[in-house]
Amino acid sequence: MEFSANQIAEFLKGRVEGDGEVKVSDVAKIEDGKSGTLAFLANPKYTPHIYNTNSSAVLVNNDFKPEKDVTATLIYVDNAYEAFATLLEMVAESMYEVKMGIEQPSHIHESCKYEEGLYVGAFAYIGKNVTLGKNVKIYPQVYVGDNVTIGDNTILYAGAKVYHDCILGKHVTIHSGAIIGSDGFGFAPTDTANYKKIPQIGNAILEDYVEVGGNTTVDRATMGSTILRKGVKLDNLIQIAHNVEVGESTVMAAQSGIAGSSKVGRNCMVGGQVAITGHITVADDVKLAGKSGVSGNIRKVGAIQMGAPSFDIRDFNKSYVYFRKLPLLNDKISALEKELAELKKTTLKNTLS
Amino acid sequence: MEFSANQIAEFLKGRVEGDGEVKVSDVAKIEDGKSGTLAFLANPKYTPHIYNTNSSAVLVNNDFKPEKDVTATLIYVDNAYEAFATLLEMVAESMYEVKMGIEQPSHIHESCKYEEGLYVGAFAYIGKNVTLGKNVKIYPQVYVGDNVTIGDNTILYAGAKVYHDCILGKHVTIHSGAIIGSDGFGFAPTDTANYKKIPQIGNAILEDYVEVGGNTTVDRATMGSTILRKGVKLDNLIQIAHNVEVGESTVMAAQSGIAGSSKVGRNCMVGGQVAITGHITVADDVKLAGKSGVSGNIRKVGAIQMGAPSFDIRDFNKSYVYFRKLPLLNDKISALEKELAELKKTTLKNTLS
Amino acid sequence: MEFSANQIAEFLKGRVEGDGEVKVSDVAKIEDGKSGTLAFLANPKYTPHIYNTNSSAVLVNNDFKPEKDVTATLIYVDNAYEAFATLLEMVAESMYEVKMGIEQPSHIHESCKYEEGLYVGAFAYIGKNVTLGKNVKIYPQVYVGDNVTIGDNTILYAGAKVYHDCILGKHVTIHSGAIIGSDGFGFAPTDTANYKKIPQIGNAILEDYVEVGGNTTVDRATMGSTILRKGVKLDNLIQIAHNVEVGESTVMAAQSGIAGSSKVGRNCMVGGQVAITGHITVADDVKLAGKSGVSGNIRKVGAIQMGAPSFDIRDFNKSYVYFRKLPLLNDKISALEKELAELKKTTLKNTLS
Repeated sequence: MEFSANQIAEFLKGRVEGDGEVKVSDVAKIEDGKSGTLAFLANPKYTPHIYNTNSSAVLVNNDFKPEKDVTATLIYVDNAYEAFATLLEMVAESMYEVKMGIEQPSHIHESCKYEEGLYVGAFAYIGKNVTLGKNVKIYPQVYVGDNVTIGDNTILYAGAKVYHDCILGKHVTIHSGAIIGSDGFGFAPTDTANYKKIPQIGNAILEDYVEVGGNTTVDRATMGSTILRKGVKLDNLIQIAHNVEVGESTVMAAQSGIAGSSKVGRNCMVGGQVAITGHITVADDVKLAGKSGVSGNIRKVGAIQMGAPSFDIRDFNKSYVYFRKLPLLNDKISALEKELAELKKTTLKNTLS
Repeated sequence: MEFSANQIAEFLKGRVEGDGEVKVSDVAKIEDGKSGTLAFLANPKYTPHIYNTNSSAVLVNNDFKPEKDVTATLIYVDNAYEAFATLLEMVAESMYEVKMGIEQPSHIHESCKYEEGLYVGAFAYIGKNVTLGKNVKIYPQVYVGDNVTIGDNTILYAGAKVYHDCILGKHVTIHSGAIIGSDGFGFAPTDTANYKKIPQIGNAILEDYVEVGGNTTVDRATMGSTILRKGVKLDNLIQIAHNVEVGESTVMAAQSGIAGSSKVGRNCMVGGQVAITGHITVADDVKLAGKSGVSGNIRKVGAIQMGAPSFDIRDFNKSYVYFRKLPLLNDKISALEKELAELKKTTLKNTLS
Repeated sequence: MEFSANQIAEFLKGRVEGDGEVKVSDVAKIEDGKSGTLAFLANPKYTPHIYNTNSSAVLVNNDFKPEKDVTATLIYVDNAYEAFATLLEMVAESMYEVKMGIEQPSHIHESCKYEEGLYVGAFAYIGKNVTLGKNVKIYPQVYVGDNVTIGDNTILYAGAKVYHDCILGKHVTIHSGAIIGSDGFGFAPTDTANYKKIPQIGNAILEDYVEVGGNTTVDRATMGSTILRKGVKLDNLIQIAHNVEVGESTVMAAQSGIAGSSKVGRNCMVGGQVAITGHITVADDVKLAGKSGVSGNIRKVGAIQMGAPSFDIRDFNKSYVYFRKLPLLNDKISALEKELAELKKTTLKNTLS
C-alpha cells in the first residue's frame, strides 16, 4: 500500500504543509525514519529530530511551530499521537490475520456457551459453565476456570489464566502469563505462631476495555469482588491485591502494586514500581511518580506525588535537592557552631571589660 | 444453608450479645453487609462500620467494647479473624467441588508413582520418576519436571511450573504461573568481557504448608538447596534467588525479593516491594516495612526496619519528618549565617570601642 | 566419578598446594563442604570458611594468600569462579540427559522449518512460518507465535511464550513463564478521558547468548525492534518495555525494569528492583545499586549510582549518613538559634552599656 500525504491528511481531516504528493508506504519512528515512511511528533523531547528526519512525512500537532526548515512534508492534526494510532491500527489489520475456529486438542467443557467468531487455540482449557461472547479469541494454553463469563471481542493471549467465577467485560485484552482471580493473600495468625489460610470466595471483575499486561496478577476478593473499572490499563508485572478497586481509565506502569482493599480513583496515572498500601483511598486524577510509596489516603483530586512515603512532587523535589547537599549543610552547621563559640568568648570578654 | 447466631456461637465456642435467633445465610464485609449476612471485625480501622452495618451478625474479638449502640447481633470469640476463616472454609467447601481423576490429554510418564485422590488436569505434564502423595491436585497446564517429589494434599494451580529434582512437602499450595526451581542467576565474568553460565545443579525444597503466590519465582540452588521452611507464605510476583533460606512461618507481601544465599529468620513479616540483598542474615521476628532495602545483616531479633538502606523504623520516620522540612532547615541555616555575620560586626565594633 | 586434586589441577591448568592425591567425587559450597568434595573460594566474604572447611580440595584464585593453616588441598587457578563453572558444566552434563524428539500431543504447524537435534515437549505450540535452528529445545507448554525465528542451541523452558515475528539468536536461554514480544504499553489519550490503544507492530530481537529469567517480560516495539544485544543476562521478573535496547553483556538483577525507548549501554550491571525511566540513555559500564531510580541520562562511562532519583554512589552514601542524623542536625540548628538569640541580647547590652 502506498498513500500520498494529501490522502492521509484527507483521511485524518488534517492540513498539509509541504509536498502533498510525496508518497509513503510504511511507518517509522521520527529518529530513524527513512524515505517513504510516515513518522509522528508528539513528545517535545523528539522535536529536534524533525529538522533532520529522513521520513517523507510527519504528523504533527496543530500547535507545532517549526523553528527551522523542515524537509519532510508536515501533516497537521488535532492529536498527532492519536492520529498515528489510527493509522497503525489500519497497518496492523492488514498485517495480521484474524484467528478463527477451534484447534485440537483443546478442552472445552460441554456446558460452555459461545457465539460466532470464536477462536480457541490448541491446549486451551475451558471449564464448566463458561459463557463466551462474540469474537472471543482464546489463544493456546489459556486456562479459563469454571463459571467464568467473558464479553464480546475479548482476547486472551497464550497462557493467560482466569480462575473460576471471574467476569471479563467486552473488548478486554489479557496478555500472556497474566493471572486473573488467584487467591488473595489472606492468613490469620493463630496462637501457635503459624497461619490459617482465609479462603478467598469472592471473584475479580474486569469491565469493558480493560487491558492487562504480561505476567500481571489480579487477585480475587476474599468476599465480594476485586474490580478494574472500564478502560483501566495495566502494564506488565503489576500486582492488584484482593478487594482492590481501580477507577475508570486509570493507567498503571509496570511493576506497580496495590495492596488489599485499597481504592484508586479514576483517570489516575501511576508510574512504574509504585506501591500503594492497603486499606486506603486515592482520589481521582492523581499522578504518582515512579517508585512512589503511598502510605496513606490521598484525598486531593489531581494531587501529584513522589517519594516513599510519597508527598507533593514539588516539595519532594525541593527536599531532594537539599538531601543531595546534606554533607554541605552539615559543614555549615559545624562552622556556625565553631564561629558562635568564638563569638561567645569575645562577647564575654567585652561584657567583662 | 441458614444458621442462627446462637448456632454459630456454639460452633465457635463464642458468646452472643443481642438477638441469638437472628438467621444468616451468607458472609459479607462489614462495610457492605446486607441483612442475612455474617461479618467480622478484627482491624480497628473498620470499627466505625460496626455501628451502621446492615449485617445481621458480626464476629468480634472478646476485648471489643462498643462505644455506641450496635444493631447487629455480636458474637464474641477469642480471635474473630481466625473464627471467620474457619467459617469461610466451610462455605468454600460447600461451594467448590473437589477435583478428581485424570483428564485427557495429559502427559504422565509411566514411571510416575501416585496415590489415591489424584487430580491431573488436561495438558498437564508430569516427567520421569515423579512421586505424588495422596490427594495431590495438579491443575491443567501444570509442568512437573523429572524426579520431583510432591507430598500429600498439595495443590498446583493451572500453569504452575516445577523444574526437575525439586521437593514439595504436604499441604503446599502453588498458584498459577509460579515457578519453582528455575536456574539461579549465576554467571562468572570472563576475560573477554562476557559471562560464563554457572550450571545450577541444586534444587528447591518447599516444606509443609508453604503457599506460593501467582507468578512468584523460587530459583534452584547452584549446589545444595533453596529452602522455604514450614508454613512460609509468599504473595504474588516475589523473587527468591538461589540458595536462599526462608525460616518457618515467615510471610512476604507481593513483589518483594531476596537475593542469592541470604537467610531470613522465622516469623518475619516482609512488606511489599522489599529487597533483601545477597549473602546476609536476617534474624527471627523481624518486620520490614514496604519498599525497604536491606543491605546488611539484621542481627536483632524482632527488629522493625524501614527505608533503603533500611534502619530502625522509628528513627527512619523521625529522619523523614526532617527530610520533608529540609528546605526550611536550609533557610534556618542561611538565616543563622546572616545573623551571625551581623552580630560579629557589632561585636567587633564593641571590642574596638 | 572420582578425581584427584592433581588431575583437576592438570585439567584446569592450575597449581596444587597440599596433598595432590586427595580424591573428590562431588562439589560443595565451601561453608558446608564434606570430605570428598571440591569447593571454591572467590568472594572474600567467604574467606574465613577456608580455614575450617571439610571439603577435601578448594579452588582458589592465584592471588590468594592463606593467613592461617588450611587443611584442604588448594588448587590455584587464574579465576576460581570460572574454573568451578567449567567443572560444574561437566557435572551437569553427566547428570542430565539431553532432551530429544517430538512428544505428542504437540502442535507444530506444517510450515515450520527445523533441523537436527530438535526437542518439542508435549502441549508445546509452534505457529506458522517458524524457523528453528539445530538442537533447539522447546519444553512442554511453550508457545511460539507465527513467523518466529530461533537460532541453534537455543532452549525455551516449560511455558515460555514468544509472540509472533520475534527473533531469537543462538545459544539463547528463556526460562519458564518469560514472555517475549507482548504488546508494548502504548495508549494515546483521547478527548473523552479514555485511551486509544497504539497497535504494537514491531518485534523483539534477542541476540546470541542472551539469557532471560523466569516470568521476565520483554515487550515488542511499537515500530522497529526491542533489542537485547549479545550476551545480555536478565534475571527473573524483569520488565523490558517497548523499543528499549540493552547493550552487549549487560546484566540485570531480578525485578528491575526499563521504561519505553531507553537505551542502556554495554557491560552495565543493574541491581535488583532498579527502575530506569523512559526515553533516556545510560552509558557503557555503568553500575546501578539495587533499588536505584534512574530519572535522566547517565552520560559518564563507568558511573556508579544509587538512590531514587539516583546519583553518584559515594555522594549518595554521604548524604544518607546525614539523612540518618537529621533529627540531630535539627537539634543543632535549634540550639544555635537559641544561643544566637541570647548572645544577641548580651551584645545589645554591651553596645548600650
